[in-house]
Amino acid sequence: MTQIKIGTLAVIGVGLIGGSFAAALRRAGSVERILGAGRRPETLAQAVELGLIDEAVTLKEAASRADVIFIAAPVGAFESIFSEIGPHLGAKTIVTDGGSTKRNVIEAARAGLGSRVAQFVPGHPMAGSHEKGPQAADPDLYVGRRVMLTPLVENHPQDIATVQALWLRCGANVVCIDSNQHDGVVAAVSHLPHWVAALFMEYITGGDDATLKLDTAGSGFRDFTRVAQGSPEMWRDIFMANRDAMLAELAALRQVMDRAEHALQGHDSTWLEEMLARAAKARAEWPGNSK
Amino acid sequence: MTQIKIGTLAVIGVGLIGGSFAAALRRAGSVERILGAGRRPETLAQAVELGLIDEAVTLKEAASRADVIFIAAPVGAFESIFSEIGPHLGAKTIVTDGGSTKRNVIEAARAGLGSRVAQFVPGHPMAGSHEKGPQAADPDLYVGRRVMLTPLVENHPQDIATVQALWLRCGANVVCIDSNQHDGVVAAVSHLPHWVAALFMEYITGGDDATLKLDTAGSGFRDFTRVAQGSPEMWRDIFMANRDAMLAELAALRQVMDRAEHALQGHDSTWLEEMLARAAKARAEWPGNSK
Repeated sequence: MTQIKIGTLAVIGVGLIGGSFAAALRRAGSVERILGAGRRPETLAQAVELGLIDEAVTLKEAASRADVIFIAAPVGAFESIFSEIGPHLGAKTIVTDGGSTKRNVIEAARAGLGSRVAQFVPGHPMAGSHEKGPQAADPDLYVGRRVMLTPLVENHPQDIATVQALWLRCGANVVCIDSNQHDGVVAAVSHLPHWVAALFMEYITGGDDATLKLDTAGSGFRDFTRVAQGSPEMWRDIFMANRDAMLAELAALRQVMDRAEHALQGHDSTWLEEMLARAAKARAEWPGNSK
Repeated sequence: MTQIKIGTLAVIGVGLIGGSFAAALRRAGSVERILGAGRRPETLAQAVELGLIDEAVTLKEAASRADVIFIAAPVGAFESIFSEIGPHLGAKTIVTDGGSTKRNVIEAARAGLGSRVAQFVPGHPMAGSHEKGPQAADPDLYVGRRVMLTPLVENHPQDIATVQALWLRCGANVVCIDSNQHDGVVAAVSHLPHWVAALFMEYITGGDDATLKLDTAGSGFRDFTRVAQGSPEMWRDIFMANRDAMLAELAALRQVMDRAEHALQGHDSTWLEEMLARAAKARAEWPGNSK
């Protein structure tokens, strides 16, 4: 295990993602002091009480005091956060994030941080829960999970290595990929399921026989719709932030859906069974099955 | 608890659904003897070994010896089963089933049983698993689950009451509804999620970056796609059997999906957040949440 120890970590947005990062690094003995910043004073007070952070600070204080800053706010808030911390950022401070989209976060970082954007190493841990807030923070959240870093050409290799080492200490595995590829991949496997699950709930509750349908629904419905419980604000930001990739994914999924509907209309049970067999096999063989 | 005791139960198709019905009624002390019939001798031998059935018999023997017959075969096989058992059916034998669709099963019963269709009480337990076969049978499968009966005008009230009592002994709750309404409701809350989950798997595995996507996918993907592991043959039959209701549901869901895509294209984040909030609230308040 990589031994890394930093002095002061600042977490901006001490909810599930930020709080779990803090809790994991504290347990690993990889940080001396943890600062927390965010919009809601009561959330920060709760984070202090839970022992996730040592001290609640302003964004300006976080920028000037921290060795590493982890931004775990809704992606819609990133541009103003970058603008606020930019002017006060220590010369050696590393900024990283947990935002679910990367192209727009990088744009926001270039706008808000200016020439200091070299200090920003973009990241995205593939972990989450429908629970939220500091009370949902869990030092085990990232164990065995994947973190994607989408480094900038301006980044110092040593800073990328530091961010990677911190995630390894959280128990995660880390890959570095291009930000465009990142956004397409997460649109497909993360954002698209949320989109469909939410709209499926919207459809069921807004249609005929809603009560009978909800009373009738069983375990398949339960699993299929579970992600629809996520934070509306967070997911609105994700969809807006990853709009281009989402629209491309929706168009591509529709082609596959249309092909299948055509088969059903045409009584093509052979095509349907082959498709269902491919899907069942792929799902059963998916290595994350036991996650 | 209703006290009911029948002499001989015959289960046609001793897999998850049929085997669990047998196991629950045996545990409840509601049957004296259980016969099993089906296509595969090795499945029946396994069911005997597991103690789910006392004896493997032919369809003809099941028809002439049983007081109650439970058909738990894929719905595509129902017509030939009805034709085979019809001529040998005891005058007082009650036939019921666990088929996931009801209009087409009733059609098959009218065709295969002729005037004896009055002895057939159609049913559908809303329970399942991606596991299958007699080894997946579980006496607790139906505890707290809903069973829908869609009685025929020809049914004797006493026969409906008997089938209802057997399901109550399995721990299920029972409602009687119209077969058309049944098929629309299950198309919406059960068949549609399976359809979308399977096509989503087909899309992910058939597209660009499939390996990276599958490696990146997390718990949201896991839950959303879990149902896609179901038996391809069983689901092919369900989709073909419930084709009209499925096509209607797909068209209605597409309207909701198109509305949302339009909002995303138009940068309408207010509409999106309101929709996401409605969906999250409906899902969180769904009484089956803890099932």
